[in-house]
Amino acid sequence: MTSAERSGFSRRGLLIGAAGAGGVAVGATASGLFNAVNADEPAPPPTDVVPFFGAQQAGVATPVQDRLVFASFDVVSDRREDLVAMLKEWTSAAAKLTAGDPVGEVAGHPMAPPEDTGEALGLPAANLTLTVGFGPSLFDQRFGLEAKKPAVLHEIPALPADELDLGRSHGDLCVQACADDAQVAFHAIRNLLRIGRGTVVMRWCQLGFGRSSTTTRSQSTPRNLMGFKDGTNNILSESPADMDAFVWVGDETDQQWMRGGTYVVSRRIRILVESWDRDRLEDQEAVIGRQKVGGGPLTGVRERDVVDLAAKNKQGELVVDTNAHIRLAAPASNDGQKILRRGFNFTDGMDPRTGQLDAGLFFICFQKDPAKQFVAIQRRLGATDLLNEYIKHVASAVFACPPGLREGQWWGQDLFS
Amino acid sequence: MTSAERSGFSRRGLLIGAAGAGGVAVGATASGLFNAVNADEPAPPPTDVVPFFGAQQAGVATPVQDRLVFASFDVVSDRREDLVAMLKEWTSAAAKLTAGDPVGEVAGHPMAPPEDTGEALGLPAANLTLTVGFGPSLFDQRFGLEAKKPAVLHEIPALPADELDLGRSHGDLCVQACADDAQVAFHAIRNLLRIGRGTVVMRWCQLGFGRSSTTTRSQSTPRNLMGFKDGTNNILSESPADMDAFVWVGDETDQQWMRGGTYVVSRRIRILVESWDRDRLEDQEAVIGRQKVGGGPLTGVRERDVVDLAAKNKQGELVVDTNAHIRLAAPASNDGQKILRRGFNFTDGMDPRTGQLDAGLFFICFQKDPAKQFVAIQRRLGATDLLNEYIKHVASAVFACPPGLREGQWWGQDLFS
Ligand code: HEM
Ligand code: HEM
Repeated sequence: MTSAERSGFSRRGLLIGAAGAGGVAVGATASGLFNAVNADEPAPPPTDVVPFFGAQQAGVATPVQDRLVFASFDVVSDRREDLVAMLKEWTSAAAKLTAGDPVGEVAGHPMAPPEDTGEALGLPAANLTLTVGFGPSLFDQRFGLEAKKPAVLHEIPALPADELDLGRSHGDLCVQACADDAQVAFHAIRNLLRIGRGTVVMRWCQLGFGRSSTTTRSQSTPRNLMGFKDGTNNILSESPADMDAFVWVGDETDQQWMRGGTYVVSRRIRILVESWDRDRLEDQEAVIGRQKVGGGPLTGVRERDVVDLAAKNKQGELVVDTNAHIRLAAPASNDGQKILRRGFNFTDGMDPRTGQLDAGLFFICFQKDPAKQFVAIQRRLGATDLLNEYIKHVASAVFACPPGLREGQWWGQDLFS
Repeated sequence: MTSAERSGFSRRGLLIGAAGAGGVAVGATASGLFNAVNADEPAPPPTDVVPFFGAQQAGVATPVQDRLVFASFDVVSDRREDLVAMLKEWTSAAAKLTAGDPVGEVAGHPMAPPEDTGEALGLPAANLTLTVGFGPSLFDQRFGLEAKKPAVLHEIPALPADELDLGRSHGDLCVQACADDAQVAFHAIRNLLRIGRGTVVMRWCQLGFGRSSTTTRSQSTPRNLMGFKDGTNNILSESPADMDAFVWVGDETDQQWMRGGTYVVSRRIRILVESWDRDRLEDQEAVIGRQKVGGGPLTGVRERDVVDLAAKNKQGELVVDTNAHIRLAAPASNDGQKILRRGFNFTDGMDPRTGQLDAGLFFICFQKDPAKQFVAIQRRLGATDLLNEYIKHVASAVFACPPGLREGQWWGQDLFS
């Protein structure tokens, strides 16, 4: 039974509660309204629903959707019961939302606030995924979770070239909402925030438009705001060996509740687009180490051609610069370590202090050990990456994402029990 | 000949300049790269291109696209020639961009910055429209345009309940970019900004996700962030009589260069979603004057049923409250005046001062006389609209949008000559 059938609700084939015509004074009946919104046409079976339940959380290996709303929350209640109650409610809401259903009645009792805020009525499920994570700060004394803190979960240390805004960094909890429709992703976060009222406050929230990475061969490689294809040499979810070696937490963990989970690192990276746009093509390609249009390595032709980091030109110089981004980020330069990148392009309008576009890459990556993977790579990049002339890391966060759920389970169940 | 054929460029069937493989050191040729990006497959004829040239500017009567980037610019050069030169360049760039083409070579000469920033390569035209407007401040002494200022073009006066942020209001020029892909709209504004460097600076920029209105019967009515259908009783572009009576400037104008143009008013309206979401259904429906789910009037059933503002219930009270939004905004309450609404839902994340979502409606409307239409209606709404408890107007702007162009003409040609 889908959650739509269970709840008697579906955003597509729309049913409303008996009292749903509240306020109608002349000639209106619930069934008239029912017809008026076309609920008599049977809803087509949805092809854009990503299953919510499963061994792993969706939103990691899932082919990258087009839009992102990433929200970080701080817990304001000091009662563990409140947090547990909220996580249970969040889970049941998330199951409905990802199925394309409202979290409750949009037009229920006239004297009560609607259970769902309504702006996604009539919109498709849009491949919505909701991915939860627990930040290092959640494991302090407040909720008695000290002993449950994974050994590999720490705030990301200060890294070279960091210029972090604390107000946009960190958090006790996160929910990553990805969907092919921005309004669907926004609606999900808004309704979770509403359910969490009194227990959590939003700490920060980042919108992303345009996936800037790919996690599967079935998608063509999108471009980031530097105009380059991004994600060519990413871990692909078609490579279960890489996913197990680098992304999904396995037996090595000290915390059983994290087995099958992963750790997410987010970095708000501003791209100084005005400077970048003045840089000449040759230099842009040297900075990245790839060709701008085709995406192939400077040592090859086609996008998927293997990079030859040792290749030299006729003058005997390395073709891929010693400090080119793809050289420093490559597994070969990082003890073989890889990460699953799943970032989004963003713009938040204009930076009023500088009059420049506040735009860039909301970098998201998943891995089993942030210190060995993201932090090690970024320590190298932050120090000497040619890209540093054109980017600025302005916010940072890390969260432990538990494994997926079976129906009836709730987010954090194994952590809290 | 399309502009793609003229320029030898097309984002879909991708050609690069002879020097385009700049930086390729090993085994790469321009034609190899050419094949690598699939230019050998003929580009399918685009079905998602809105014609740029025509009697009127696109982006007004055009069916509302899904995403918005609205940018306001101030002129920083005091030379009229600079402004004219920029407007000519903008026009030719806009013609290319709306056709789905880059503004120039993405990979041209290796020693030059790319002419196009590249992030829209491979993306569809996405029904991009670019609509230009000239603000009241452009007609001051700087450019000798005083005598060309239309009599109806003034800054919007202070209105009841306004709480305006000047940094996000006004501007010498605007460009409204609407598209079905946010990255396509962003790419357009970014490249115009780049072309305008030294002549204009960006004053503010607003992103919108999710059209919150409709301008044609061929679209279903979308929902705003209050969860209500928005645009039901809008002027529809299928009604040429209404378009001529209320939107397109006609013989009445004192400025010939504005004949066939229109005036755009933008208002950044925050919705206090947290308060709204706590309001009961019955009150929400009373505030708007319509049913939440179906969108029908409180005096009817179906969405398109005509509102009966005089209808009373059994207790003899008006069914649509004296201060309901649709009563105060209706032509019947405003000397028959109408406006073409074409707004977008927005969220800019969290307001750090309050911890609440900074979300709402980026209200955009088109009309032939802002004072008689938008200002008159908003003066009434700002004073007593029940909606005021849940919204806040935080930014405002008005611009004169000239008529459309024939090929070879440029934005503002009749204004500057
Ligand atoms: C605005 C910031 C960044 C931009 C514009 C950017 C852009 C790119 C581009 C264009 C590529 C080549 C295509 C590909 O293989 O995906 C790439 C590769 C890569 N990037 Fe980044 N990147 C950024 C930040 C980062 C950060 C912060 C990290 C990790 C700390 C990172 C890790 C990687 C890795 C691991 C690769 C693949 C290298 C290889 O094995 O070939 N990038 N990036
Ligand atoms: C956040 C702010 C606003 C919200 C949420 C909102 C919402 C709505 C809704 C739900 C409707 C009914 C459906 C429809 O006919 O489109 C409506 C109608 C209308 N609104 Fe607004 N509105 C807002 C601001 C404004 C403003 C600022 C104006 C103009 C000054 C305006 C002018 C109108 C007009 C003219 C109608 C049609 C009334 C009729 O003839 O039935 N609205 N609005």
